[in-house]
Amino acid sequence: MANPQVRAPENADGVDWDLEADLVIVGGSIAGFTTALHAHELGASVIVLEKAPQVGGTARKAVAGMWVPNNRFMQEAGVTDRKEDALTYLARMARPLLFDPNDRTLGLTQWEYDLFEALYDHADEAFRALEALGVELEQDADFPDYHMHLPEVNAPRGRELFPHNPDDTRGNGASFIARLAELVAGRQIPVHLEHRVAGVVVDGDGRVVGVRVETPDGEIAARGRKAVFFCSGGFTHNEEMRRYYLGGRVVGGCAAFTNEGDFHRIAQRMGIPLVHMDAAYLAPLVLEKMLNRDPEMMGIFAVPGDSLIIVNKFGRRAVNEKAPYQDRTIQMLSWDPHDAEHPNFLMFAIWDQRAAERFPGAFLGGFIPGPGDDASHVVQGDTLEELAASIDERLDKLGALARNVRLPGEFTDSLRRTVDRFNGFARGGVDEDFRRGETPIEITFHGPVAEDNRFPSGLMFPLADRGPYFATILAPGTLDTKGGPRVNTAGQVLGADEQPVAGLYAVGNSSAAPTGQGYISGGMTFGPIITFSYLAAHAAVN
Amino acid sequence: MANPQVRAPENADGVDWDLEADLVIVGGSIAGFTTALHAHELGASVIVLEKAPQVGGTARKAVAGMWVPNNRFMQEAGVTDRKEDALTYLARMARPLLFDPNDRTLGLTQWEYDLFEALYDHADEAFRALEALGVELEQDADFPDYHMHLPEVNAPRGRELFPHNPDDTRGNGASFIARLAELVAGRQIPVHLEHRVAGVVVDGDGRVVGVRVETPDGEIAARGRKAVFFCSGGFTHNEEMRRYYLGGRVVGGCAAFTNEGDFHRIAQRMGIPLVHMDAAYLAPLVLEKMLNRDPEMMGIFAVPGDSLIIVNKFGRRAVNEKAPYQDRTIQMLSWDPHDAEHPNFLMFAIWDQRAAERFPGAFLGGFIPGPGDDASHVVQGDTLEELAASIDERLDKLGALARNVRLPGEFTDSLRRTVDRFNGFARGGVDEDFRRGETPIEITFHGPVAEDNRFPSGLMFPLADRGPYFATILAPGTLDTKGGPRVNTAGQVLGADEQPVAGLYAVGNSSAAPTGQGYISGGMTFGPIITFSYLAAHAAVN
Repeated sequence: MANPQVRAPENADGVDWDLEADLVIVGGSIAGFTTALHAHELGASVIVLEKAPQVGGTARKAVAGMWVPNNRFMQEAGVTDRKEDALTYLARMARPLLFDPNDRTLGLTQWEYDLFEALYDHADEAFRALEALGVELEQDADFPDYHMHLPEVNAPRGRELFPHNPDDTRGNGASFIARLAELVAGRQIPVHLEHRVAGVVVDGDGRVVGVRVETPDGEIAARGRKAVFFCSGGFTHNEEMRRYYLGGRVVGGCAAFTNEGDFHRIAQRMGIPLVHMDAAYLAPLVLEKMLNRDPEMMGIFAVPGDSLIIVNKFGRRAVNEKAPYQDRTIQMLSWDPHDAEHPNFLMFAIWDQRAAERFPGAFLGGFIPGPGDDASHVVQGDTLEELAASIDERLDKLGALARNVRLPGEFTDSLRRTVDRFNGFARGGVDEDFRRGETPIEITFHGPVAEDNRFPSGLMFPLADRGPYFATILAPGTLDTKGGPRVNTAGQVLGADEQPVAGLYAVGNSSAAPTGQGYISGGMTFGPIITFSYLAAHAAVN
Repeated sequence: MANPQVRAPENADGVDWDLEADLVIVGGSIAGFTTALHAHELGASVIVLEKAPQVGGTARKAVAGMWVPNNRFMQEAGVTDRKEDALTYLARMARPLLFDPNDRTLGLTQWEYDLFEALYDHADEAFRALEALGVELEQDADFPDYHMHLPEVNAPRGRELFPHNPDDTRGNGASFIARLAELVAGRQIPVHLEHRVAGVVVDGDGRVVGVRVETPDGEIAARGRKAVFFCSGGFTHNEEMRRYYLGGRVVGGCAAFTNEGDFHRIAQRMGIPLVHMDAAYLAPLVLEKMLNRDPEMMGIFAVPGDSLIIVNKFGRRAVNEKAPYQDRTIQMLSWDPHDAEHPNFLMFAIWDQRAAERFPGAFLGGFIPGPGDDASHVVQGDTLEELAASIDERLDKLGALARNVRLPGEFTDSLRRTVDRFNGFARGGVDEDFRRGETPIEITFHGPVAEDNRFPSGLMFPLADRGPYFATILAPGTLDTKGGPRVNTAGQVLGADEQPVAGLYAVGNSSAAPTGQGYISGGMTFGPIITFSYLAAHAAVN
């Protein structure tokens, strides 16, 4: 696979090392920086190689929730979070078809079970260690797991931690990265930007002893005396890989543009199996933000608004607008066997003037522009008919970029019926079609109920009888991908024989998530990343 | 990945060859035998290594349709099948989201386009060559492509060929394999049974020059002077691979039990990318036949009956019972975001005494037992309530084998409403929920309309008001898998640099299908297999 090229493993004989440290860490974001800091703490020398001209990767744009079962805040508040409950929740969500509460490993493979167990057993320890490094944290004591409403799980609130800023506000990905970069700089850990790792260097025994690096000043080789770590993210921005591994069913994603699957292909050339390559952290995207390569684009974590619905090209609702992003995206990929198409592939968020006034902002991927905000992704119309014409005109203009989707003639009439039906649900407080607003996470993601919303649900409000109406085009995308080589609980990459490849480690989206197709809850990238970077740093240094 | 083990590539230095030929062909089924025969025709020596104690692989159970665009029967009948129409149909079905009629390669990658083009350009030639070898063929002139009803395609009937028996009946997979085996034996081509290939042997330049083989008498090495061919099928029966590549969403399949992905893992260890590993030729299975490892089990290509419906555990229809098998299976995998489950994962075919009398038989995967047939997969009840109790009792007995699915209390009432609604559709002739019976392929697969069915559709008949009623449990499965290494139009396996791996060829389900997630039409394994075995044999021998 092309773009950009990676290399077959290179033999160490005759390699002149330009850089050298105990640990060479590829990727300067959460996984790489926390690994670097822990390793440095243990006395190891470290260098970090970052492909982009700046640090922070995808994390820079993250909300930065971190899923930490039995965290110290829970313990201090006397909230019980038993191991069996956490493992049950993980297994139930990761493997809904294979989960078996009566099985010793809950229906999981030993690999999956071991990683989940290590997460529970060491997450608190790792986050305490993160705080000891100098990163302040806070808890959202009310934050619910996405599926805490399932009767077969016991998922206490408060597993979600966030960075905490010195000014006592809640941190986010950007502030978290800034703090970690500060700590890395304070320890004089070298971070080389625009250093792209294109391959590994191995010794005669097959041990990974370094990497080959492309830099603005030519190629160099970097030696990792104890280990090479790949903390370099997924393959969201490799179109060919999306096509051959994700079925071409997502249009792109909001991962860092440097996430092109370099490590996946390096590992592939080493004969290392890649698993779960069809899985991703899915989220709907605002199509035009994606097409404009907006570097600040986020996935639509939460759909704003109460007098707002999302419809497909037939003018019908097809998702619970307030459901978690993974679930909303899966519904966008549903298949119509008769017409052999994905009828919800593009969807259209539609709102009225009232929602525009009450729910503007970009928080959690919100797409309703406030006064003065860029509104180029929004079309409008004074009537539903005019709105439909505006959407269709925009689709026509986008052409192949919108996969040649156009609105059929029935759209406006159908939309009118959909609005009437939704308005009835809003007045009655019960969404008979999609159960909007029934779970704790929907209520949390919606945020404060609008003051003028006196209807029973709070998350629904009838769309106005009169325009203006507004719309934006949504398409299925990723936060990042979930496939890659498997790693063990020490972060060691497992080869075809299921044994660790000596010297080779991976943390984060460059390795396979044991959660597979499932989406556990918010913070299920950062929580495990910070836990396993801690465990892996210890394993590699000691 | 385990079970059974494969090996890293072995260096040819010091290997003692036990067997030797120009071509070593792994797998004694349609792909292997046609490759062997063509190569022999060209003057090459050939040996065939088959893992099972008998030849025929999955093909032995196949219906043996073969999708052959612009075949000689069409030509002789004056039916036009233009290249642009065939390529458009292929592209539209293989890549519904990426298809672009205005694009030079129709929205396909060059790799995909080249393979589709080669299929159109050479299928007729390859099938004429097959006839010249001594295999008789016939056409089903009326057979429709599965999605010929789409307005944007022009898919003439008659692309489907079948083997033709000497007694003038239509052949099937078993008779086809028998004929090929006869031709192979007639040419004294050695076929070694119970010879499992566990790895490849490579020379110093990385050229594949042979294979390492496990036999009942110990290990041997077989040298392929010109080429090694893998014609060894997919990975349907490797549970771990199903889990890590197909998301654990199918329970098994009707491929030969020897299809355990050996070549996929051999290629993986060579650093060869595997693509479309999440794709499969999907078909619903009769769960209990699958659990009994019934060696004759077929996928349910066509659901028999008119007074028969398929419902999920909530007693509701969720599929068009007459749709092609791939489409029915996809609907079984749909996701309920609120309950975080696949509500259609197990489904229940339900029929009455009338259907039992009029639609018995195993043809095309039929599951209604005739008099004297094994009926152990069928439960019954004199009322819908009793039937529900019988189903639930069977589910209880199966336990984890039925993924712990049980019928909720609402099942019977819901089933009653479903039957009433379906009966109304049957009387009126229009299935307002799932459009049952509206496409040509549904009518073909249904077969002759029951004589006493005077209702407008012919494919629907009201279920009787009185029992007995019957049911069987359906689960999603595969015919076989679609992922693997990519090959070029000469059948050469492509390495990580997209260049052919010298000496290494693959044909059939051991390589990646360029059709990806799509299901083109009947015969879309055998049609390409026979075309590409012909092209690859020529490429390897010349």
